[in-house]
Amino acid sequence: MPKPELLETFPNPYGDRKYEIFMETTEFTSLCPLGGIETDAAELKLLEGGAPDFATIRITYQPAEVCLELKSLKLYFWSFRNDGIFYERAVNRILDDLVAACNPHSMTVVGDFNVRGGLKSIITATATKAE
Amino acid sequence: MPKPELLETFPNPYGDRKYEIFMETTEFTSLCPLGGIETDAAELKLLEGGAPDFATIRITYQPAEVCLELKSLKLYFWSFRNDGIFYERAVNRILDDLVAACNPHSMTVVGDFNVRGGLKSIITATATKAE
Amino acid sequence: MPKPELLETFPNPYGDRKYEIFMETTEFTSLCPLGGIETDAAELKLLEGGAPDFATIRITYQPAEVCLELKSLKLYFWSFRNDGIFYERAVNRILDDLVAACNPHSMTVVGDFNVRGGLKSIITATATKAE
Amino acid sequence: MPKPELLETFPNPYGDRKYEIFMETTEFTSLCPLGGIETDAAELKLLEGGAPDFATIRITYQPAEVCLELKSLKLYFWSFRNDGIFYERAVNRILDDLVAACNPHSMTVVGDFNVRGGLKSIITATATKAE
Amino acid sequence: MPKPELLETFPNPYGDRKYEIFMETTEFTSLCPLGGIETDAAELKLLEGGAPDFATIRITYQPAEVCLELKSLKLYFWSFRNDGIFYERAVNRILDDLVAACNPHSMTVVGDFNVRGGLKSIITATATKAE
Amino acid sequence: MPKPELLETFPNPYGDRKYEIFMETTEFTSLCPLGGIETDAAELKLLEGGAPDFATIRITYQPAEVCLELKSLKLYFWSFRNDGIFYERAVNRILDDLVAACNPHSMTVVGDFNVRGGLKSIITATATKAE
Amino acid sequence: MPKPELLETFPNPYGDRKYEIFMETTEFTSLCPLGGIETDAAELKLLEGGAPDFATIRITYQPAEVCLELKSLKLYFWSFRNDGIFYERAVNRILDDLVAACNPHSMTVVGDFNVRGGLKSIITATATKAE
Amino acid sequence: MPKPELLETFPNPYGDRKYEIFMETTEFTSLCPLGGIETDAAELKLLEGGAPDFATIRITYQPAEVCLELKSLKLYFWSFRNDGIFYERAVNRILDDLVAACNPHSMTVVGDFNVRGGLKSIITATATKAE
Amino acid sequence: MPKPELLETFPNPYGDRKYEIFMETTEFTSLCPLGGIETDAAELKLLEGGAPDFATIRITYQPAEVCLELKSLKLYFWSFRNDGIFYERAVNRILDDLVAACNPHSMTVVGDFNVRGGLKSIITATATKAE
Amino acid sequence: MPKPELLETFPNPYGDRKYEIFMETTEFTSLCPLGGIETDAAELKLLEGGAPDFATIRITYQPAEVCLELKSLKLYFWSFRNDGIFYERAVNRILDDLVAACNPHSMTVVGDFNVRGGLKSIITATATKAE
Repeated sequence: MPKPELLETFPNPYGDRKYEIFMETTEFTSLCPLGGIETDAAELKLLEGGAPDFATIRITYQPAEVCLELKSLKLYFWSFRNDGIFYERAVNRILDDLVAACNPHSMTVVGDFNVRGGLKSIITATATKAE
Repeated sequence: MPKPELLETFPNPYGDRKYEIFMETTEFTSLCPLGGIETDAAELKLLEGGAPDFATIRITYQPAEVCLELKSLKLYFWSFRNDGIFYERAVNRILDDLVAACNPHSMTVVGDFNVRGGLKSIITATATKAE
Repeated sequence: MPKPELLETFPNPYGDRKYEIFMETTEFTSLCPLGGIETDAAELKLLEGGAPDFATIRITYQPAEVCLELKSLKLYFWSFRNDGIFYERAVNRILDDLVAACNPHSMTVVGDFNVRGGLKSIITATATKAE
Repeated sequence: MPKPELLETFPNPYGDRKYEIFMETTEFTSLCPLGGIETDAAELKLLEGGAPDFATIRITYQPAEVCLELKSLKLYFWSFRNDGIFYERAVNRILDDLVAACNPHSMTVVGDFNVRGGLKSIITATATKAE
Repeated sequence: MPKPELLETFPNPYGDRKYEIFMETTEFTSLCPLGGIETDAAELKLLEGGAPDFATIRITYQPAEVCLELKSLKLYFWSFRNDGIFYERAVNRILDDLVAACNPHSMTVVGDFNVRGGLKSIITATATKAE
Repeated sequence: MPKPELLETFPNPYGDRKYEIFMETTEFTSLCPLGGIETDAAELKLLEGGAPDFATIRITYQPAEVCLELKSLKLYFWSFRNDGIFYERAVNRILDDLVAACNPHSMTVVGDFNVRGGLKSIITATATKAE
Repeated sequence: MPKPELLETFPNPYGDRKYEIFMETTEFTSLCPLGGIETDAAELKLLEGGAPDFATIRITYQPAEVCLELKSLKLYFWSFRNDGIFYERAVNRILDDLVAACNPHSMTVVGDFNVRGGLKSIITATATKAE
Repeated sequence: MPKPELLETFPNPYGDRKYEIFMETTEFTSLCPLGGIETDAAELKLLEGGAPDFATIRITYQPAEVCLELKSLKLYFWSFRNDGIFYERAVNRILDDLVAACNPHSMTVVGDFNVRGGLKSIITATATKAE
Repeated sequence: MPKPELLETFPNPYGDRKYEIFMETTEFTSLCPLGGIETDAAELKLLEGGAPDFATIRITYQPAEVCLELKSLKLYFWSFRNDGIFYERAVNRILDDLVAACNPHSMTVVGDFNVRGGLKSIITATATKAE
Repeated sequence: MPKPELLETFPNPYGDRKYEIFMETTEFTSLCPLGGIETDAAELKLLEGGAPDFATIRITYQPAEVCLELKSLKLYFWSFRNDGIFYERAVNRILDDLVAACNPHSMTVVGDFNVRGGLKSIITATATKAE
């Protein structure tokens, strides 16, 4: 299961100014619960959880009180490695976890998933702080 | 004939949030009823239906109640393989079929067709849910 | 002389929806009446009409009652091959001819001409239907 | 089944000089007999023959007495559209058919197949005339 | 000194329509009065005027009564070759000279200068006709 | 542990001709036993085995009696997902396993690993059959 | 410590016109106070200050009374070389220093930092003059 | 008909050294006698000679006594504009004409023709001086 | 001064096979003793040692008894940060230090330095073990 | 006139090893004596010497006793700015001047000239030391 408890923050050093932080990893990997578009049941038994998915994750946010600490974000992403999760859930779950951790003015999460069955998928979700 | 009955959906896991899903295939192929800009009548007899067309199809939508299931979308695209259909019809037909299947907040379909007779064609159509 | 009489159309199969058609050729060629920025008078006598120009032409339009037929558009472009015409005239002339042929909701024509004398030129013209 | 009988040739106009001809199509498509790495049996029933494969085919040869006629080569490639054939067989079969048709000094055929199951495949085969 | 008197124009053949003309040269060169960020005084004596600068110049305008003649624009650019001028002055000077020559609806000039001292500079200036 | 027993082969359909097969995956991932250049001991406890490594693996071989079956190769690559292995070992181990499985005329394996600590690593190993 | 006292300006030669100046260096380097996401304490002792960070810095501004002198900007960037500073602080600090030096109509500073721990970071901050 | 009599040469200024000259035009156009792979008979009547072909021509040679004059080469290429000629003939004809004009140590001509019917063609021919 | 004593090695796990290791950093920086092509004496006083140089360093070697340890290589590169060294010396010095550390079958070091004064420099040096 | 007397050298610090130095400038400019392929006589009077040419110059050499000093090479290139010289002469002249200055084991000079009259030219010349 993804571990949002790994996420750490530090005080925003320029909290008076609304500025933007973008972070990207090309090394996100999780498992697909059903094996996904390309994998049958026999193959799934080889890995406990499902067939591997790979994605680039892009996060853009305007920090409010605190900023996300990079190293803890890396570890949070690692915690998806061996659990099964669908594309739509993964992106919205990351958005919910990160917003809960740092409560930004606004945040957008993009999950750009590798081709499966000849189909590329990109999911984009945004949350805005009620102000 | 395209088979919209192949399309399947699953409940949108984050229906309260308006987010965006983009899907792309570079492997769409159909036939041109008249043989198209590059083919004469004698050649057409070789294939029952017309001369091959190739396209990249891009779909962007905001899911409402349900999301399109990827594997079923792949099979739906396969069902165009051996039927004749013009560019404008193909793109608008895909839009109509997908909207009928998942009734999204809005959807855009782009058909980016390979060069024929030195001419590239890109067709873009959008539908918005009455809300 | 350009031959707009070559242009053919077919009924727009989805006339109720405002959608967009983009067409591009990288193989447009005409002649420059004066020989242009790189050619002197002696050279011009080698070709009856002027020095060769090359361009990519891009057309974007929203069809109304009818759509432009691709094969006829290809032949219309061929009809510029051996006539002299300046850049600004060529782009505006193509716009006028195509609008006259299919009377679209709106249309934009871009002429992206090869470098001459170290200078690249791109001309963009738009026409909108009075509605 | 591939139809080598569609291939036509014309006399090499410069037979005294050993020169090279390269031809490439990015629009080769066939079917995979078993559905391939990404498709299960249920899906295969949708198409009579197998799951679609897509490839770029590159041919390089030194013509001897005759050259391959381009239009007939296009039709020969079309004849693979609805038959099942494995990658290795497809490339070697094309090489055998083309060599039989034009008996060149030498010929290389490359089949550069689209990603399936996260794996790209490129097959390269060469034949040289006994001289 | 730049020679705006070299600039010539011709009547806009489609003056009733507001359309756009873009022109670009990748071969603009001038001298830097002080030798610039990379050159000391001793080196400057080698060239009468300063150290060489290189830039791409991009011009976008909406012609009114007249259009800029391309060949004369090329010669106008040549006239900067051996005179010293700073980046900011060069771009604004070109804008002033070209606006004076053709009095367009609006015009933007971009000077995209080569890296000096590890720093790239791009200057953008716009003028709009009082209408 | 990598599972070479997953590898399957099929008879080479054109065994009389020496031809070449290239296969590439951009989705290889394993773990680094020591956490690697970027990870400290505390982080390693989060994953049983080590910090994630990512690589593109490229295989080129000339098949002899048998060819490698693609689907089984995919599963073999999956079996590295949760075991710790160094770069040099991974590439040479893959070469040994694949050569043992299909005994080709020759084979080259390239492991192109993602940047770690600002350093990219590419390992290339070749084996040739004694003939 | 960064040395804003190195920054020099010169009078804006076209102060009546609101135009834009963009400057970019791909050679910004500083140190990370804590060693950052990839470095442990033992390594940090090798350099007095922290582990090296690398970034591209992009500045866009509309000059008012004065423009920033390029050579002095280069030296100002050099003054970050051996001091420890976090990403968010570096970008906001540069913005504050440059605004203090030239008081522009508006200015945006972008810090595009190299991948660390598989994560890329881009920080964007803007200041606008009260007018 | 191509006009080799347009070709001019000048004495090689460094005849004692074997060096290489490469020249390339992306603006070669001729006509296809039969209309080629994409055009039927009715269309051919629109142009006296055939359907337009477009190519990039690349020439590499080692000059002996004389070099090819660039302006005359441009005019020689123009002379193909309105005559019908097949790909193989065009490339070998250019090679013969240029070798006859300047008798170089060796020369290679490459004709890289635009896609027709989904097929790209590149013809390469070389001649070497008997020495 | 560069610190070769930082370099560590580990036993080559596949010493019986001659294989190749490539390593690359895009983050090499040192100082130029004289300030280099772009910097005058006054500027040099700002940094103790010289003006900053930036390079990509590429290393290719065939390990014999031992392999270079990546983390120690990173620290070795860091040790050039604040010392002055010319391009030619830097590349040959790195080659000498690395060869001394791991005594490979052969090694090539490439230093690809950023543009200075409009000039790019790439230095390539190779050492081969006497065997 | 080009001024080879500007070229300076320094002792090769690693003269015992045969290594390679590559240097490139994208900012070479000279004049064409006749105005070249694109310019008529009237235009030539605007600049004393001819029409501007632009090129990228690439130099690769194996230093023997001495290396070329970069700053002096920059000034040597500047000395071509206002003199007329043909492409073939420029490249061979640079080769002769640089070989005379540093007497390397071998040297290759490439002049990659901008498109003129739709034609690109690249001249390559090599000199090898008699050893």
